[in-house]
Order: sequence, then structure tokens, then C-alpha cells
Amino acid sequence: MSAALLHADTISDALTRRLFEVIASWPIYDPHSHINPHAPAARRFDEILGYHYYTELAHSAGMPAELVDPALDPRQRSRNLAGWLDRIDNTVQFSWLTEIARVFHGFDDVHAPIGPDTIDLLYDHALKESPAEANAWDDRVWTTTGLEAVFLTNDFDDPLEGWDTSRYVPCLRTDDLVLKLDRPTTSERLRNTTNLPVEDIEGLKNALGVLFDRFVSKGARACAISLPPDFQAVAPDVTRAATPIRRALHGLELRPDEARLVQQTVFWTLAQFCRDYRLPFDLMIGPRRDVYPAGVAGGRDLYDRRVSLHDYHELFNQFPDVTFPISTLAPDAAPELVSYAWIFPNVVAMGHWWYSNLPAFIATDLRAKLQAVPQTKIVGYYSDAYKLEFILPKFRMFQRVLAEVLAEDWVRGRGWSEERALGLAERIMRTNPKRLFARGE
Amino acid sequence: MSAALLHADTISDALTRRLFEVIASWPIYDPHSHINPHAPAARRFDEILGYHYYTELAHSAGMPAELVDPALDPRQRSRNLAGWLDRIDNTVQFSWLTEIARVFHGFDDVHAPIGPDTIDLLYDHALKESPAEANAWDDRVWTTTGLEAVFLTNDFDDPLEGWDTSRYVPCLRTDDLVLKLDRPTTSERLRNTTNLPVEDIEGLKNALGVLFDRFVSKGARACAISLPPDFQAVAPDVTRAATPIRRALHGLELRPDEARLVQQTVFWTLAQFCRDYRLPFDLMIGPRRDVYPAGVAGGRDLYDRRVSLHDYHELFNQFPDVTFPISTLAPDAAPELVSYAWIFPNVVAMGHWWYSNLPAFIATDLRAKLQAVPQTKIVGYYSDAYKLEFILPKFRMFQRVLAEVLAEDWVRGRGWSEERALGLAERIMRTNPKRLFARGE
Amino acid sequence: MSAALLHADTISDALTRRLFEVIASWPIYDPHSHINPHAPAARRFDEILGYHYYTELAHSAGMPAELVDPALDPRQRSRNLAGWLDRIDNTVQFSWLTEIARVFHGFDDVHAPIGPDTIDLLYDHALKESPAEANAWDDRVWTTTGLEAVFLTNDFDDPLEGWDTSRYVPCLRTDDLVLKLDRPTTSERLRNTTNLPVEDIEGLKNALGVLFDRFVSKGARACAISLPPDFQAVAPDVTRAATPIRRALHGLELRPDEARLVQQTVFWTLAQFCRDYRLPFDLMIGPRRDVYPAGVAGGRDLYDRRVSLHDYHELFNQFPDVTFPISTLAPDAAPELVSYAWIFPNVVAMGHWWYSNLPAFIATDLRAKLQAVPQTKIVGYYSDAYKLEFILPKFRMFQRVLAEVLAEDWVRGRGWSEERALGLAERIMRTNPKRLFARGE
Ligand SMILES: [Zn+2]
Ligand SMILES: [Zn+2]
Ligand SMILES: [Zn+2]
Repeated sequence: MSAALLHADTISDALTRRLFEVIASWPIYDPHSHINPHAPAARRFDEILGYHYYTELAHSAGMPAELVDPALDPRQRSRNLAGWLDRIDNTVQFSWLTEIARVFHGFDDVHAPIGPDTIDLLYDHALKESPAEANAWDDRVWTTTGLEAVFLTNDFDDPLEGWDTSRYVPCLRTDDLVLKLDRPTTSERLRNTTNLPVEDIEGLKNALGVLFDRFVSKGARACAISLPPDFQAVAPDVTRAATPIRRALHGLELRPDEARLVQQTVFWTLAQFCRDYRLPFDLMIGPRRDVYPAGVAGGRDLYDRRVSLHDYHELFNQFPDVTFPISTLAPDAAPELVSYAWIFPNVVAMGHWWYSNLPAFIATDLRAKLQAVPQTKIVGYYSDAYKLEFILPKFRMFQRVLAEVLAEDWVRGRGWSEERALGLAERIMRTNPKRLFARGE
Repeated sequence: MSAALLHADTISDALTRRLFEVIASWPIYDPHSHINPHAPAARRFDEILGYHYYTELAHSAGMPAELVDPALDPRQRSRNLAGWLDRIDNTVQFSWLTEIARVFHGFDDVHAPIGPDTIDLLYDHALKESPAEANAWDDRVWTTTGLEAVFLTNDFDDPLEGWDTSRYVPCLRTDDLVLKLDRPTTSERLRNTTNLPVEDIEGLKNALGVLFDRFVSKGARACAISLPPDFQAVAPDVTRAATPIRRALHGLELRPDEARLVQQTVFWTLAQFCRDYRLPFDLMIGPRRDVYPAGVAGGRDLYDRRVSLHDYHELFNQFPDVTFPISTLAPDAAPELVSYAWIFPNVVAMGHWWYSNLPAFIATDLRAKLQAVPQTKIVGYYSDAYKLEFILPKFRMFQRVLAEVLAEDWVRGRGWSEERALGLAERIMRTNPKRLFARGE
Repeated sequence: MSAALLHADTISDALTRRLFEVIASWPIYDPHSHINPHAPAARRFDEILGYHYYTELAHSAGMPAELVDPALDPRQRSRNLAGWLDRIDNTVQFSWLTEIARVFHGFDDVHAPIGPDTIDLLYDHALKESPAEANAWDDRVWTTTGLEAVFLTNDFDDPLEGWDTSRYVPCLRTDDLVLKLDRPTTSERLRNTTNLPVEDIEGLKNALGVLFDRFVSKGARACAISLPPDFQAVAPDVTRAATPIRRALHGLELRPDEARLVQQTVFWTLAQFCRDYRLPFDLMIGPRRDVYPAGVAGGRDLYDRRVSLHDYHELFNQFPDVTFPISTLAPDAAPELVSYAWIFPNVVAMGHWWYSNLPAFIATDLRAKLQAVPQTKIVGYYSDAYKLEFILPKFRMFQRVLAEVLAEDWVRGRGWSEERALGLAERIMRTNPKRLFARGE
């Protein structure tokens, strides 16, 4: 099946299909992922099936977590999981899997679904044994997907070397610095990567400066962080923060109020660096980590829906020159982001994230964004993918909803020309992310 | 009008209608209701019109509560209410009423709506005076509805005798035990029904054991409870709970923190019994009772929408072997349940409850469930009915939305065969509730 | 373009269009606006373009706030803004603008959009220089819109003189009294307008009595207030409130708990006056003021979505004779209002407000209201307009969604006749607001 046509054959409305086909033909500019630039596409089908969506959904459907233990032989792990796929084949995540199998592995799932009877065939087809084979496969997936660039999620001590950073764009991920500064591993990693002592708040700032220098010089386009639902983005009392930060950097225990102050101070300092280095600061708001500790890897986090962007208003006010592309995790919090992006010049509504990344939620949320947020401030979608193969089916899922919304509400509903509607689509899919993450260049 | 065809004539899309007609032809397995097994169908139309939806909506529209006082003559009460129905005939609840009148009483509402001019006719038609007539009517409604089984809501001191428990399935309702243990009536009822002294936490556990033994031996399939929006399902400090529980069992007053601890302890103990007896524990989360005390009976409860399933994560973690079929009351909390059912193996998304039971809310919520929850963990619907007659129109309302969602998103949108879509429907309507409530048998 | 046909040409479904055309032909009864009765329609296009939606959206899209400084020459301000409109032409608010240009100024935006090249033309067309011209224009907009009456928002010290109060209906806005009583300007304005000393709680009540007398004698139809998301509408301890109220009236500083008590006491007192004067009390719940202080005028307020109507239950219970038409600001709070209007006889669901006033949100919310709130308790829509010209496009936007919902769900879905569906529409658009705000007359 042609990658461009993925979905098109199931769109019965002719106008929607026309819009979709144009949108799907554009190069994909993907402003957030977890791709490993040293091995972007899957070398084994286990890397596809091992995506946390499949392991967590299968586990939720009854599969013991041990069956997908990372220590198992990859083929066996795939076989184990395959036996549970029929329980989750209703999900949209499963539809990404079948689309990958169809487009990248020529797999015809109509006559035999992905499951125990077909997994070995798929596994064999997807296996890339030599480095040359793997590289060719990376290129093949890149080309088939029509990728232009994909943003990474880099640890702060990532050396950022060994790949084409115009294709695989570095982003500085800062969760550990803000949320885990008091863990000895964090301060140690910080010292190792900067060759600085990092004993106190001044040392911390120097070290962060080294990191920002390095990231920006390597082509980084964003700083990013995910924050828990009760995080308060308020200006810290820096004087009061000095001692707790010193304690944190030496692995000493912190009282809850001290821990909070340390987090707020590091966060605020990062915002200052984002301002100075003209880096957008991606805020991914809402996850509560390890809510289900017995879950599979990557499938333990959830959220508390009692969250509000009002907790961030001081940040938005204090940093008018920093662009904040924001994703919220709780689907019912989406309307609030529409309102905040409508008012604050530096708040950008970005994509549809994780638990909100379902067509059922996207449909209303996307309509609302397009109805009330300036078109220059919407970043349509990002893949959040760990392997290149997922970028295509995820973007197609979104592009389909986008085509439906534009056909119904803008072309039919407002009498716009198809050309004009496609102009709006191009803005949110390509123009905006390319401009917003260009660091003003 | 044929019961199977209820709704079909107003479905204009041929595919949706075909799906609907098949789904509507299946026997109904209804996993939650308030049916009285000694008088399951209505003996008087007043028992239909007296459903709290009609009395509360009419009262909300201006009808004095006295007009539906339970002490009034039933015919008069029906006449009183009939005069206010034109104010609520837009509601979906009113559509259930007209459908009951059409299907069960051959009433043609097109030419004369249910109201003051027709209420006597309906009342006369619905009147079942002798026990034999009543029994025949129960059978007639059962057969017309195509019922296979309906779950009850039994007080903990219900003797559970005098009916076919394979049709009318007992469920242990535990609100009084958890939320009202400190009321003298509760401990007295507990002593009376168990013939145990029940003086302290040990006595309480013994009594609960007697109840679980009795319920399970009588074919109970679930334990159930409704919990207020601020309930915290955390592991109690049982040692600290001993004294407050003793005080509660002797009707002594409790401080707020003690009352909370008693509730948490009894709740936790019930979860332990559910584990030991392999009973699913239905959690119905959200109601705030008696918010409008001057309302009609059954029409005084509302909710506070600031609620989160995060308050239950400790419970889900501590009881991996207990299945928790969950309903949430606040419509905007529905997406969170989708996320929790997607991650926790023991969380099942069940039905569309009370204030959330409107097609406007079901449409998006059902789509989201079917897009992200393993198909084995969705219980499509339950009637929550007090009289058998309501099961049919309520299930038809849901089945219609289900047929629409499957036609649009799965058959047309994903290219599934109708057969496959119907397989998914059958899972959530029949296979899942039958399996999940089978106690592992 | 004919005003009645605005939208009709873009409605492809024939049934929906028929319903829309009838609904759009009815006189508009608009129960909430900010129209200035001394200058209801715009004298300059700058008054259209200066609506906060355009200035705030353009500012959000990058326009410096100085470009729309109120001190600027109006034509220049319009030119400045015009240069930014292409960034927000996707929004529904922009569609109101083009519809005003089309209907009231014969502007053909298909070939040349409203922007830098056309703004002078529009500006010239819209300019009304003499009082006679302005009055004629007011009449022309009134007639073209098909207005019957529009409610105002009057400061408590508005003399309410100089206009036809049967067309421009006074409403007493009480935000300042409740939320800013401790500002010297408030107590001063209160003393000036009542000629009373207003030194203490008794003086305050006397002054409020004078205001209610004046407003009611001038034809006021409602008391109105907007309240922050954390406001608690509980019965105040009036004895304890005496001192803080005296302090507030003398401009002395209040502790936070005192300030809260003062607000609650004044609010409660207003509810008592609403009861005594049979005035509905419009509650507009949710805004948090000045969240973005650097924003343009009117574009600085947002909200915190963690809000619940449960905080108002004591009010609803204590004032059964007061009608509370309620609007909520957070879109995701809408379902809760459906539930509260379904239960409380004195709670009316009113319109779609501000950040909730997007078709994407209206569609589901309106469906839910029509499915579960007695039809006598829904006030379909209000314009919230500052200039007469906006009433038409805003009502058309709503009427279109209404026609779609009625066509799909009531005529097709429930088999209602078109006549019956239009009867429901007429209730919520005309009958209800006219009756609910008639003060029992
Ligand atoms: Zn990510
Ligand atoms: Zn129930
Ligand atoms: Zn207003």
C-alpha cells in the first residue's frame, strides 16, 4: 500500500479525501519524538511491538508483565505479546500497528491479522541484521514517510554527536534537572558532562550555561519538560533556595517545601536560559509518574485531572520573550489550553499528547483550536514516536481528522475555498513548527 | 410497535440501521439495576411515571414536590405529574417514557401525547390488579425486552429469597456499611441479619464474612458502592481505626477525621472480602447526597466535578486480583476513566451513569473507550432501572449510539467488516459482563 | 447579503437549512449585552475592530498592545490592527467581522479580505459623523438585525435615563459592590448615587434598596454579577461581617478572611433584594481577572478550570424564589450546569459565554441541555455584544448549531415534526427569556 494513500480508501466523503490527500503528500515536520538518532527505525519487529502502548494495553487486558520482560529474547517477547493482540485490536493504537505492517512490511492483515500465526513472518521480514541493512532501512522508512525533520528528546548529558542534526533535531529534556536534582546520579551526571564542580546555585547556573551552549551549538531547537499536575510555576525566592539547592546537589534529604522550592528554582532558571538562548520551552503538563508501579515499562504513569494552566500564569507573564509550546495530558483540560493560547502571545497550543491522542478527543479539541487560536500559534501534531515507523500512521490519523474538520466546518460551513483551507492546514503542520522552533533565525 | 424495531425507523443511514437491528436482537444482559425481584415490572403506571427522572424534571420545571408525594393516591399522583410533562418532553428521559407507552401499552403518542388528556387511558391499560396478572405482566415485559439476566441492588440485610437468582442476580450494596456505620440503624441491622454481637472491628469482619457467605451462596455476582467525590481510597491505619470503629458501632459521635478513617477501613475490608470471594467491586464514583434537600424523592443528589481517579490508585495497586467495574458521575470526568481502564488491568469502564447517561455525552465517551480501552474491559451499558419496562428504551438509546459509532468509525473509518464490528459490539454488550461477573467460574 | 440568509447558503443539508431559515426569521430577544444605549451601533469601524476579541487575538498573534492604544487616532488604530488580521482569520470571531462587513457595509470579502488594503474603504463606509446619521444607523442596524429587545449591563450608579428602556433593558451589574466594596471609589460612588451616608451594614442595605428601587422603576429585568472561580456562595455570618463591612466602607484594609466575608455578605444581601424585587440574578461564574496584565484592554482575564457549582448549592437552597440564570466560563464545566439546571428549579442554563462561545463547544453542550434540562429552563443565547452590529452574526452562529442539532437529533433522530422542533427552538430563543425576565408579570 502506498504510504500517501494510507487512510484515503476509507474516507468516503470526496471533499475530505481530496483535502486529506494533499495534506498527506506534504513532507512531515515532526516537532517532538523520542527517536534514537543512532538507530531511528526498528531493527527488529520487537521494537515496534515493544512500544509501551502495546505492552501496556496487552497487560491491561490480562497479559502478565513478565511476558514482555526486557531481558527476554526479542523474538520470544514478540511471540508472547502476539497472543494478546486480539484483545486490543479495537484500539487506535493497534491500527497504527496494522498500518506499519501494511506500509513497511507489505503485510496483508485482512486475511490474517497480526497475531500468533503471523508474528514470525512479520518478525523475519522486519529483521535487519547488518549495519548496512539497518542504515538502508532507516533511509527507506524516512523516505516512505516523507520526513523532513524530527525532533529528539535528549538527556542533558547527551554528547549530541554522530548524526545529522538537521534531520534529527536535538532538544534538551530537563525533567531530571528540575524534578530529580536531589538524586546523586543527577548531580554526578551534571558534573561529569560539564567538568564543573556544581556545588551550589551559582555552580548550577554555570553548568546549565554549559549545557545550553552545547545544545544550541549542536542545533537544538527546544528545551522541554514534563511536569506533574500539582506543579506551581511561580517565581522562586532565590535567596531562600540557596541552601536547599546546595543540599540537593550533595544528595542530602529535603523537606517537601524545600524540594518544591528547588524544583521551582531550577525550572525558573531554565526559563531564563530559554529566554537568553531564544529556545522555545515545551511544557508537557500533567503526568503523575509511577501511579501503577507493577505495570510494564513505560506503562506506569497516569494523571490527576485536577490541573489548571492558571498555575502557570506567573511564568507566562514573566517571560514574554519565551515561546511556550504546551501540551496537556488530561483530555478534559484541553479547552483551557485553547483559552490560554488565545490570550497569551507566548503560549502555543501544541499537538495531542498521549492519553489525549485519540481521534475522539482530537476532533473537538482541534475544532476549538482552529476556531479560537490565532492560526500562527497552533502546532498541529507531533508523533512522540520512539521508532521512525510510527510517525507515518500517527500523522495520518491526525491528518484525517484535520481533513474532516476542514471539509465540514471551513469549506462547507464557512464557504472557504479548498485552497484556503489547505493554507490553514499547511500553517499548523509545517509553517508554524518551522518558524516557532527556528530560534528567531 | 415491535420492541426490536424501537429506534430503527428513525435511523436514516442504512449501515447504521443494519448494525442496530442486529445489536437490538441480542438478549440483554443488564449488570446493574434497582429492580425489585418481587415486583419487577410496574403494577401501576404511577410506578413508571414515579421514576425520579420524571418527578425531578417536572419539579425542576416548576411542579410543587407535594404533587408527587408518595402518600398520595397513585392515580392522582400520575394525573398531577401528567400536567407538567409538556415542559420536559424535549428530554431523552421523556423519550424513554413514550417508548414504554408505545411498546408495552400500544400507545400512539403521535396524535395525542402523554399528558392530562391521555393519562387515565394509560393508567387503566397499565393497571395489574391480581397477582396472576402481575406475574404474567412481568413475563411479558421480560420476553418483549429479550432479557437474559438483570443484576439487582440488594441491601446487606436482604434475605435474598423468593426469586430466581439466575434471572434476577443479587449484588451486595454496601453504601450503608461504609458511609453510615455510625448510625445506630446500621449496626442494628447488621446484628439482626447476622445474629452476631458486632461490637468491634473483629466483630465487624465476622459479620461481613457472614454477609459475603450468604450473598455468594445465593448467587451474588458483585459487590457495589457509590462514593462521594472527596472519598480517598487509601490503605487505612487499622490499629488507629479500632477505637473509632468501636465508637461507631455503639452510635457514639465521631470527629470528622475519625469518621473518614472508619469509612476507609470498612471500604478496605470490603475490598479484601471481594478479593477472597472473587467478587467484582463496582465503584460508582461521584455523588454528593442531599445537595437539594427540598427536592422530590430520588431527585436531591448532585455532584462536585472536582474528582479524580488518582484518589483510587492505592486501591487498584493493592488489590490486583479484584476487578473494579467503574462508573463516574461527572460527565467531564469520563476521559480519565478511559485512561485508567487503559492502564490498570483491574479497572473496567462500565456503562454511562445517571447524569452522564445522555447521548450527547455517550457519543464521545463511547468512541474514546472503543479507541483506547482493551475490548475485553468495556462493559457497554446497564439500565440502572427500577422497573423492568425501562430496560428496553435505555438499552435501545445506547445501542443506537453504539451502532452509529461502529458504522462511522469502525466500518467506514477503518474498513472493518460489519461482522467484525458486530463482534466488538457483542463483546461489550454480552461477553464481557457475563465473563467479568462470573466470579472466575 | 440579506441578514436572514447569513449562513443559509453554506448549509448543505436541506432540512437544517429550512429550520435555520425559520429560526433566523424570528425577532431577536437578547438577554445580555454591554450595549451603550446612548450609542448602540458603531459610529466608526474602529468600534467594531476594537472589540476585545480582535485586539486580544491580534495581540496574541504578535501585535504590540501599543498599536491599539485607546489614545490613538481611531482610523490609525484600525489600520494598525488590519495588518494583523490575516493571522486570526481562521477564528470564529473573525467570521463575525466578515459577516458584519458583508451585511452592514455591503463589503465583498471574497475577492479582497478585510485587511490593510481594504480597511480605509470600510472605515469610510462605516463612519457616522452627525448625530442624525448615527441615529439613523442605530435604527438601520436594529431593523436589519430584527431586534426586539436587548439587555444592558448598567453600573449601579447609572442614572438610567435618556433611552427607551423597553428596547434597551436595564440590568443592575453588581461586580463592583461585591468584589470591590473596599475600594474608596466604590463607596464614594454608592454615596453619590444614593445621597445616603453608607457607613455600615445597615447603611449599605438602605443604599442597595435605593438602587433596586431605581432600577426596577426604570424597567430593570435582572441583577447580574461575574464571580471568580473560588467564590463560595455560602450564608454569611452577618454579625461577624459588621465590622469588616464598616472597615471596607471606610477604605480600610481587610485581611483575606475579612475580604471574603464582606464579599459573601454583600452577595447574599443582593440575593435577598433579588427575591424581594423578583429580579432574576444572573451568575456568570469563573473569570479570574487580570491574569495577563500586559494584555490589551478587555483581553487580560482568564480562568481556573477547577470550579464547581457545588459551591453554590447553599444559595440555590436558601433562595428558592430567585431565578438564577447561570453561565459558566470554563468549557469543560458545562456538563455540571446541565445537571444543576436539571435538578434545581431555580437554576436556568443560560447561553454560551465568552471562552465557551465556540461552535465546537456549543454543539455538545446544547445537545446535552436539550436532552436533559426542562425546555422551560434553557435560555438559548445572548450576544454579550458591545455594539449592535455583533448581535446578528453571533446569534446566527448559535442558530446554525441549533438548527443542526434539531435536524439531526430531534427531527431525524426522534421523528419529531419540523413544527415541533421549531416550537422547542422558539421556547429557548424567545419564550423563555421573555418569561423568565418578566419579573412574574
Ligand atoms: Zn514525549
Ligand atoms: Zn444504580
Ligand atoms: Zn457580559
